[in-house]
Amino acid sequence: MAITATHSAAETGTPGSASPSFGPAVALSCRECGERYPLGPVFACEQCFGPLEVAYEFSGVTRESIAAGPRSIWRYAGLLPVPADVAAKPNLAPGLTKLVRADNLARELGMRALHVKDDSGNPTHSFKDRVVAIALEAARTFGFTTLSCSSTGNLAGAVGAAAARAGLRACVFIPTGLEPGKVVMAAVYGGQLIAIDGSYDDVNRFCSELIGDPAGEGWGFVNVNLRPYYAEGSKTLAYEIAEQLDWRLPDQLVIPIASGSQLTKVDKGLRELIALGLVEEKPYKIFGAQATGCSPVATAYKAGREVIQPVKPDTIAKSLAIGNPADAPYVLDIARRTGGAVEDVSDPEIVDAIKLLARTEGIFAETAGGVTLGVLRKLLAAGTLDPDAETVVLNTGDGLKTLDAVGAGVTATIKPSLDAFLEAGLVR
Amino acid sequence: MAITATHSAAETGTPGSASPSFGPAVALSCRECGERYPLGPVFACEQCFGPLEVAYEFSGVTRESIAAGPRSIWRYAGLLPVPADVAAKPNLAPGLTKLVRADNLARELGMRALHVKDDSGNPTHSFKDRVVAIALEAARTFGFTTLSCSSTGNLAGAVGAAAARAGLRACVFIPTGLEPGKVVMAAVYGGQLIAIDGSYDDVNRFCSELIGDPAGEGWGFVNVNLRPYYAEGSKTLAYEIAEQLDWRLPDQLVIPIASGSQLTKVDKGLRELIALGLVEEKPYKIFGAQATGCSPVATAYKAGREVIQPVKPDTIAKSLAIGNPADAPYVLDIARRTGGAVEDVSDPEIVDAIKLLARTEGIFAETAGGVTLGVLRKLLAAGTLDPDAETVVLNTGDGLKTLDAVGAGVTATIKPSLDAFLEAGLVR
Ligand SMILES: [Zn+2]
Ligand SMILES: [Zn+2]
Repeated sequence: MAITATHSAAETGTPGSASPSFGPAVALSCRECGERYPLGPVFACEQCFGPLEVAYEFSGVTRESIAAGPRSIWRYAGLLPVPADVAAKPNLAPGLTKLVRADNLARELGMRALHVKDDSGNPTHSFKDRVVAIALEAARTFGFTTLSCSSTGNLAGAVGAAAARAGLRACVFIPTGLEPGKVVMAAVYGGQLIAIDGSYDDVNRFCSELIGDPAGEGWGFVNVNLRPYYAEGSKTLAYEIAEQLDWRLPDQLVIPIASGSQLTKVDKGLRELIALGLVEEKPYKIFGAQATGCSPVATAYKAGREVIQPVKPDTIAKSLAIGNPADAPYVLDIARRTGGAVEDVSDPEIVDAIKLLARTEGIFAETAGGVTLGVLRKLLAAGTLDPDAETVVLNTGDGLKTLDAVGAGVTATIKPSLDAFLEAGLVR
Repeated sequence: MAITATHSAAETGTPGSASPSFGPAVALSCRECGERYPLGPVFACEQCFGPLEVAYEFSGVTRESIAAGPRSIWRYAGLLPVPADVAAKPNLAPGLTKLVRADNLARELGMRALHVKDDSGNPTHSFKDRVVAIALEAARTFGFTTLSCSSTGNLAGAVGAAAARAGLRACVFIPTGLEPGKVVMAAVYGGQLIAIDGSYDDVNRFCSELIGDPAGEGWGFVNVNLRPYYAEGSKTLAYEIAEQLDWRLPDQLVIPIASGSQLTKVDKGLRELIALGLVEEKPYKIFGAQATGCSPVATAYKAGREVIQPVKPDTIAKSLAIGNPADAPYVLDIARRTGGAVEDVSDPEIVDAIKLLARTEGIFAETAGGVTLGVLRKLLAAGTLDPDAETVVLNTGDGLKTLDAVGAGVTATIKPSLDAFLEAGLVR
């Protein structure tokens, strides 16, 4: 697998030098050994194989400059590896989804101040639009002509839609046997949709092979060779939550764990806001949420371990079903450092939580949203989560994409007459 | 069927007198004979059985006051029958959906300036959140404790979600045999969902019976006894389009026709903006769009008639499948008065248009969005629509709710190996 840049340093700058194409980003830096690399389509350290992440030199970002920006994640362009004129390019302009003050839900849970960050409001109805939007800009800069990914659902739709709007080719790889709904959503944008006869792991192995092959030349895999840029998109969740709370940090955040990247980057975003003086410094606790059927991080957290044991996922929360999460060590570190926790909930608890959120706030969450709310509930009952502290729980996707998980149905079927209605005892 | 107010005039004011609960609205007025009524839960004229609509006395609404308002339809509270503090009440705060500059699509169609008003970005992913939000506030004012409707899809979800967030009971009536997806979406918010063993017409007849019965006391049917308020919600589409064009009117609008209410109210909203001096007066043309399988208005338009012949709907565009549209005469009048037209497209043309929009702009529209874009295409080809004039086409719903209509699928299925990929000739 190629891990070094296939494009010249002249095109992408030298480490530590800014390039207008990447805004405030100045280098890629190894999370493990700190080695720095030019901003290129690379994702693993040549020294230690650690993951690379974007390093910045910020300047001139104020609450006012943000408030004057576009009504999308591009208002935070000065904090992201994107060009300053990114909002003028054809992309889906995701973000600035609602932070819903959930008073009904808080009342039922005995909480004082609860908010739902509802990313079902994004263009393709999941948080993946955020990360893909950043990867797309990197793909343009590197001259890639095909946007690609391996996916079992949300990411496929997000990549297909973003590529369509940007005028890039899309080629998305999925395992066979996906639900028809997810297949349609991935196919409708007109890119290539290739089903791989195997498991999701087989699809990932195939993609790694393709990146190392000449056939993959010019291909940007958003979650592989563009991963350092892609991952930064999750920081925008932190920025939006803080801005929507009038530039205040919440006390507690409950965030789902798939690869763990989202949780890690939300923490990174919060720390950036403090460092830049955009919010007042204060402690916050980050809680990670998994489905019991795929809970390697929660298991390691509870056992006091620093490394996880990979698992074979078996849960209705398919968008979180990564058995060997790459960012698990960082997630464990953040949960422990901030005084949070990592917890998991069963499939029935996930469904209960989806219905609770729908019934109290009118928000129809994906299974991943059932996981975060279910975990919040469980941690409240255990006394781990403070009911009086201001809390934000993430819903990262849309219930319309995981209909089969819910199993809601009609109250009754009656003949078309008032008598039938009255006799059925349905009047409350 | 009760058509007069069941609540006292003291509660709802006398005709012509303002009530804080209804903001700038001062009366209901008959569209046919002009007779005025107090603002109550009534919908038909006692004199002539004509439909009632909200009459206003506006004051103090400026571009600046709107810009300073909430990021939802409530920024236009001063132009709607709602209290000034409506944004502080628990509701879904719909609206301010994206107006997408569709340059890729325009290029393919040979147009100069085309925008898609994309209402799939609303909380339950259709424009119905707008109309239900207004009906909900009226229901609160009238002291109704149950929010209800007859629906075959989008409206059921919108009512269920709005009632949940508002803390009202919901009771939604649907015909039997709906797609499981629509049933889940309607049921998940926890209200009653009653399937009526019959057609949609049977459901409507049943609801009319229920409103006239003591069992229906305290029930607000958003699209029956709250219809005058409900319908006003569509005006917000006009306001948003004008504001998002920097307070300019487009030259041409393409709007779907179900009952015809949306098209009628968009025109009302545009005329209000002109009358209030919020936009410069200029001509605009309104084009109505139907599916051929339910095209009574298009048929009447083409035949030069002023009244329609009801039809039995047979089309994949189920959200537009109203065979006897109540506002048809007004739609015909508006199309003729503004120099527009009414046209219809076949089911295959609808699917083609859905795919075209997805492929060019990354927007996955409901079948109703395929109808408007399909009609735009057909009118362009016929020379009826001006390719050089600034045009807005409405997408009122979400492709995720009408997946079966599209039939998109995988490009190919291959074994998990690079060789298999290369041999399949899939590299472009
Ligand atoms: Zn390293
Ligand atoms: Zn009348």
